[in-house]
Amino acid sequence: MAVLGVDVGGTTVKARVTGDDGAVLAQWREPTPTGDPQALAGLVRRATEWYPVDAVGLVVPGIVDERAGVCLQAVNLGWRDVPVRELVSASVDVPLAFGQDVRAGALAEVRTGAAAGSSEPVLFAAVGTGLAGALVVDGRVLDSPWAGEIGQVLLSGGGRVEEIASASALARHAGAPDAFTVAERVRGGDGAALSAWRECVRVLAESIAWTTAAVGCATVVVGGGLAEAGALLLDPLTHEVSARLGILRAPSLVRAHHGDAAAVIGATLLAQDLLATGVAR
Amino acid sequence: MAVLGVDVGGTTVKARVTGDDGAVLAQWREPTPTGDPQALAGLVRRATEWYPVDAVGLVVPGIVDERAGVCLQAVNLGWRDVPVRELVSASVDVPLAFGQDVRAGALAEVRTGAAAGSSEPVLFAAVGTGLAGALVVDGRVLDSPWAGEIGQVLLSGGGRVEEIASASALARHAGAPDAFTVAERVRGGDGAALSAWRECVRVLAESIAWTTAAVGCATVVVGGGLAEAGALLLDPLTHEVSARLGILRAPSLVRAHHGDAAAVIGATLLAQDLLATGVAR
Repeated sequence: MAVLGVDVGGTTVKARVTGDDGAVLAQWREPTPTGDPQALAGLVRRATEWYPVDAVGLVVPGIVDERAGVCLQAVNLGWRDVPVRELVSASVDVPLAFGQDVRAGALAEVRTGAAAGSSEPVLFAAVGTGLAGALVVDGRVLDSPWAGEIGQVLLSGGGRVEEIASASALARHAGAPDAFTVAERVRGGDGAALSAWRECVRVLAESIAWTTAAVGCATVVVGGGLAEAGALLLDPLTHEVSARLGILRAPSLVRAHHGDAAAVIGATLLAQDLLATGVAR
Repeated sequence: MAVLGVDVGGTTVKARVTGDDGAVLAQWREPTPTGDPQALAGLVRRATEWYPVDAVGLVVPGIVDERAGVCLQAVNLGWRDVPVRELVSASVDVPLAFGQDVRAGALAEVRTGAAAGSSEPVLFAAVGTGLAGALVVDGRVLDSPWAGEIGQVLLSGGGRVEEIASASALARHAGAPDAFTVAERVRGGDGAALSAWRECVRVLAESIAWTTAAVGCATVVVGGGLAEAGALLLDPLTHEVSARLGILRAPSLVRAHHGDAAAVIGATLLAQDLLATGVAR
């Protein structure tokens, strides 16, 4: 049976149709419809008309109450208390699974990605425009609406964590167009880039260490745009996280396997789970 | 049916026998047997000989693998990789449930204490000789051996969290015999006491805020000796946690209901659960 996964981002919607074995049957991107959440329902309906599927998995960003089917707050989309599942369900003829994007990414990484087979707690940290996390315990993603918002904590020195520890903040502090350029400059020994990089690593390590200590994570999967830097990020980050944890067990830090497709893959998994269990989550 | 709960502390063992309805049939304390963990088995056996029960719940401190029945590390007791469940089970004739003390305290507070009825995530923070936490999600205590060790994280300025944010550290920094005396002096306006108190609150708030952001806690139950200070602690702590969380939802901070009996009550609950489900955890 085929399922459609839809990952709604601030500017782009990613869509993917997969078969039973997870084989990709189709995938595309289109601009996120602005304003009215009803436009999203139209987008999903047209997709299912174009490529008939047995179920849809839809994931959105922000503070999301997955059990109620409501997006409590998504600053990028200008949404507040939007009953997304109900709105979109009403316009498609197949069952709809609903979730949050970072939690869906975590699901993809523990089921078929960098943390597959892990029986101990896993943190998936998405380091991109912002910083958000999702926790997986006993194979289940923790779905409290407010869980994982580690990028919003205020630092002792003032300012939110993600104002230092994110790809966009890194670029801004280094005076570069994007994080990729910052990484290039770090490799070239540029002082301003190095200084911004170290500060980003330090704050990211702080948030990962606290989360690891609280939940006992054995593995931290680093995703989002900044993870593309690979060892340039993961080596110093592993060192700093371990140093912060002192006598506690240091987690393995690994790069996300699914890159920026993690959330849309997670959306297809939610749709498959819905077909398998009949439980509309 | 009667059950025996046993809470093994660094210096004292607390024991309590309860009936079906949770009524306390007997309770006592005795010194913790030092050295050989076998001595603990003897203590539990003698208790069950004196007061016949249908099951025993035993909780111990430190890094505990509840599923394996092993205490990986308990500095206070000088234990390392001790198969406590097996050792003690062998010397008693009734089923034995095994767990960690802070997680047992959390269980007591969510079942019959300050967080009873909460459906959202709860943090139980035990602020005593050290600082440790336990998390409850969907009514289940997270039982990864390394979860909750927030007191061991190293601060940016150096030193472990519990070297500032604990009852014993507070007394030491204020130059007082104990935290109770520090609280008295704070109420009297003593400068050194006030300064140590504020620093303790600041670091405790930092650890609570990070844990709340990671897991989405709606309630934080503050237990351990320092919770006895009541509003003197909870009022500024609530303010600081909320300030740290910025736009995120601030949790309710409440004082533990069961005081220093939380862990032994949790141990009796583990024993009752074992009788009800037959699952030896």
